Amino acid sequence: MADYDIVVLGGGPGGYATALYAASAGLTVALVEANKVGGTCLHRGCIPAKALLHAAEVFRTVSHAGEHGVRLPDGVKPEPDWPAANKRKAGIVGNLHKGLSGLLKRRKVNVVFGWGRLTADGAVAVTGEDGGTQTLSGRAVIICAGSAPRAIPGMDIDGVKVITSDQSTNSDAEKLPERVAVIGGGVIGAEFASVFTDMGVKTTLLEALPNPILPLGPDRDVANVLAKSLARRGLTVHGEARVGTLEHTGSGVVVPFETPKGSDKIEVDQVLVSIGRRPVTEDIGAAEAGVRLTDRGFVDVDPTTMLTSRPGVYAVGDCVNTPGLAHIAYAEAVVAVEHFLGENPVPVDYGKVPWVVYTHPEVAWSGMTEAYAKEAGYDVEVHKHSLAGNGRAMILGETDGLVKIVAQKNGPVLGFHMVGPWASELMHEGYLAVNWEALPSEVGHLIHAHPSLSEAIGETMITFSGRSLHG
Amino acid sequence: MADYDIVVLGGGPGGYATALYAASAGLTVALVEANKVGGTCLHRGCIPAKALLHAAEVFRTVSHAGEHGVRLPDGVKPEPDWPAANKRKAGIVGNLHKGLSGLLKRRKVNVVFGWGRLTADGAVAVTGEDGGTQTLSGRAVIICAGSAPRAIPGMDIDGVKVITSDQSTNSDAEKLPERVAVIGGGVIGAEFASVFTDMGVKTTLLEALPNPILPLGPDRDVANVLAKSLARRGLTVHGEARVGTLEHTGSGVVVPFETPKGSDKIEVDQVLVSIGRRPVTEDIGAAEAGVRLTDRGFVDVDPTTMLTSRPGVYAVGDCVNTPGLAHIAYAEAVVAVEHFLGENPVPVDYGKVPWVVYTHPEVAWSGMTEAYAKEAGYDVEVHKHSLAGNGRAMILGETDGLVKIVAQKNGPVLGFHMVGPWASELMHEGYLAVNWEALPSEVGHLIHAHPSLSEAIGETMITFSGRSLHG
Repeated sequence: MADYDIVVLGGGPGGYATALYAASAGLTVALVEANKVGGTCLHRGCIPAKALLHAAEVFRTVSHAGEHGVRLPDGVKPEPDWPAANKRKAGIVGNLHKGLSGLLKRRKVNVVFGWGRLTADGAVAVTGEDGGTQTLSGRAVIICAGSAPRAIPGMDIDGVKVITSDQSTNSDAEKLPERVAVIGGGVIGAEFASVFTDMGVKTTLLEALPNPILPLGPDRDVANVLAKSLARRGLTVHGEARVGTLEHTGSGVVVPFETPKGSDKIEVDQVLVSIGRRPVTEDIGAAEAGVRLTDRGFVDVDPTTMLTSRPGVYAVGDCVNTPGLAHIAYAEAVVAVEHFLGENPVPVDYGKVPWVVYTHPEVAWSGMTEAYAKEAGYDVEVHKHSLAGNGRAMILGETDGLVKIVAQKNGPVLGFHMVGPWASELMHEGYLAVNWEALPSEVGHLIHAHPSLSEAIGETMITFSGRSLHG
Repeated sequence: MADYDIVVLGGGPGGYATALYAASAGLTVALVEANKVGGTCLHRGCIPAKALLHAAEVFRTVSHAGEHGVRLPDGVKPEPDWPAANKRKAGIVGNLHKGLSGLLKRRKVNVVFGWGRLTADGAVAVTGEDGGTQTLSGRAVIICAGSAPRAIPGMDIDGVKVITSDQSTNSDAEKLPERVAVIGGGVIGAEFASVFTDMGVKTTLLEALPNPILPLGPDRDVANVLAKSLARRGLTVHGEARVGTLEHTGSGVVVPFETPKGSDKIEVDQVLVSIGRRPVTEDIGAAEAGVRLTDRGFVDVDPTTMLTSRPGVYAVGDCVNTPGLAHIAYAEAVVAVEHFLGENPVPVDYGKVPWVVYTHPEVAWSGMTEAYAKEAGYDVEVHKHSLAGNGRAMILGETDGLVKIVAQKNGPVLGFHMVGPWASELMHEGYLAVNWEALPSEVGHLIHAHPSLSEAIGETMITFSGRSLHG
């Protein structure tokens, strides 16, 4: 007989969501974690990154306080206080870690610290820090092995001058670097470029693809608003850039790169490598247990059930080849647990999940971009609404923004795209419209509070009727 | 033959929305306005009030900048700069006014300045500033006469020491008053109490009803979070308070009041009277035109069409007895225009409209409160989720907040209630759930971005399933 209903391998978002949801359904759960529950998201990813982005927002607000009616003595300018920002961030992470640990305890999840590996008979063998081992058997095992930053072959990540997001979210430096190169303009690179730029760091972003700010994923119209805003605030950006071998000098790091315009190099104090993440599945006993991995190291799953190639073994989160987002891991955890319970879970509709980039301005979307919908053969109708005339955006002083809605001609909303203040939150209304396959007219008839940023969503929906209010 | 398809009487939100929507549908429109297009909302209400609330938010942010990682020199504290706050507010109002005027022009709406009155034959006679008159006839007239602050009988509103929101949104004072009494704890009173309190004004709120902060409307659990937050920040509140005759002294105004605890009085520099608003229908020619008013002066309408007692004459906005909110006026304008066009408009579902109070923290709701649903005989299930453990609220440093969802047992969502940062925007997701009569499980299966404030909505929805993630 198994020790537990479910043994969870890994305590990040996929793992703790699995454990909490399973426990709330009355199952007995063991959770194996090598480090701290919370995983990358809580300790080295989403949460600390957003805390630093918020510090940048406070910095922007203080810098413009005078025009908003808040007086500081003449000549007083704010300075970034990096240790304070990091201290506050560490406090938030600490509180969330404490809360999560307490919640796991209250739900009677047995958290076992150590490195877990699948065994040939489908159990999990855990090696503790002291070298001792124990074996936990479950009626099911759910692999939540997570991911780690990808490295560039031949580039030494020393953790000080050449770092990944693992270090940039956990800085113990006394000061911000003065000059930073960010290699990679995806979500993580764009977010840190946004923080650094707003905190006064001379920042250069190098991306291998064209459209260097968020080259993959978002609708171009929306990404371009972010790109323009970052450029206006001082970010230097090079697309189609191939980075050469770094040279450490006495005063910093020289980053040579080639673009279609020719060769160039910059000297910086720190290089942030943010070229993506890879699944951490090398040492989880997959081969021993007969759990199939893909060529790129992801655990191979049936995305309707999250089952791996071995019966009774599931995998969710960043270790499977689905969008690497904490909230996707949560949703996959629910699918896996419900499938284990013999229920008929609603699979994650991966084409319609919420995507959020917490840059300033924020970018968020759900569903198809205009380009994707056209390539997929849809006859589309598209309407856009800038935030430039939105009363609340004007009040906030943040009118860099756009709502763009892609719908099937005379049919439902296919994609919702937004850039602007609080897009991360406002997106959920668009997400509902996409997932409930609403007609624009159905949303257009609904009322949006005045004044609100959300009015821009309503106005855009109304525009599909051929009429408009302010739009 | 009529001069226009539609003559609109009044250029506030109801009036300009009518004009813009009708013009976008190809109708010819004249709009009569006595003052400036935009009305109370733009010039004396929503927009300037929210601009001042934003100044208060900036003030709070600057006051706590140090802990967020933004250093100001030792001992430097922000001071409210009331003229600057009012200047910025005036700039926003001016830009929106310019935008609205331009949009009306581009849509070829003929804006006629002067005081308009209905005539016996159903036209509108306009008396200009120069005393000249002209008569405009339309195939339909839409009355958008608006509202004005209610006064307290016997209390002289001098506009300086005793004011209404008309003046508090248009201050040309060099400094904020040091001591303010706010009479009335409804939406407007609560919003100004929030501004004044955060800007360091010693503020006392006096309300005739029990539950003095937002006594009518919101769910008590949600209003109580706001009340506690305001009290903690320094607002003094007296419920069941009957205010006596004000005494002007050399140093200010003495406000005597009685509560169940006894008699008391306070001296203040300014008294803000915010006891509600009344329709402005005394001088619009209603009797002459045979347009019936109610006892309380509202234009009597059929709320499914917005038609008055006189065929071809409609009324929308604050002059009819529906929720006095700009976005309700917009929605009613669409109903009236569509009915005029012979379409079958979807009437406004007044029990499910979005309500927003822009205090700090914000309060927003749609649909039934728990108390209302129970009185109405529903067997209800209620779940709440505090923002105390929400990662993004912690990052913002704004964990005063709550999501409360009222659903029919095993049935759809009846009411969505929220207090907390950006509730004004997040509410729209709950509003969609209420208006689409979604089951909590249908929303619970949807994915909310992590980290986001909206996750609290998802968590609350999931709780109805008997299981939970973090909740």
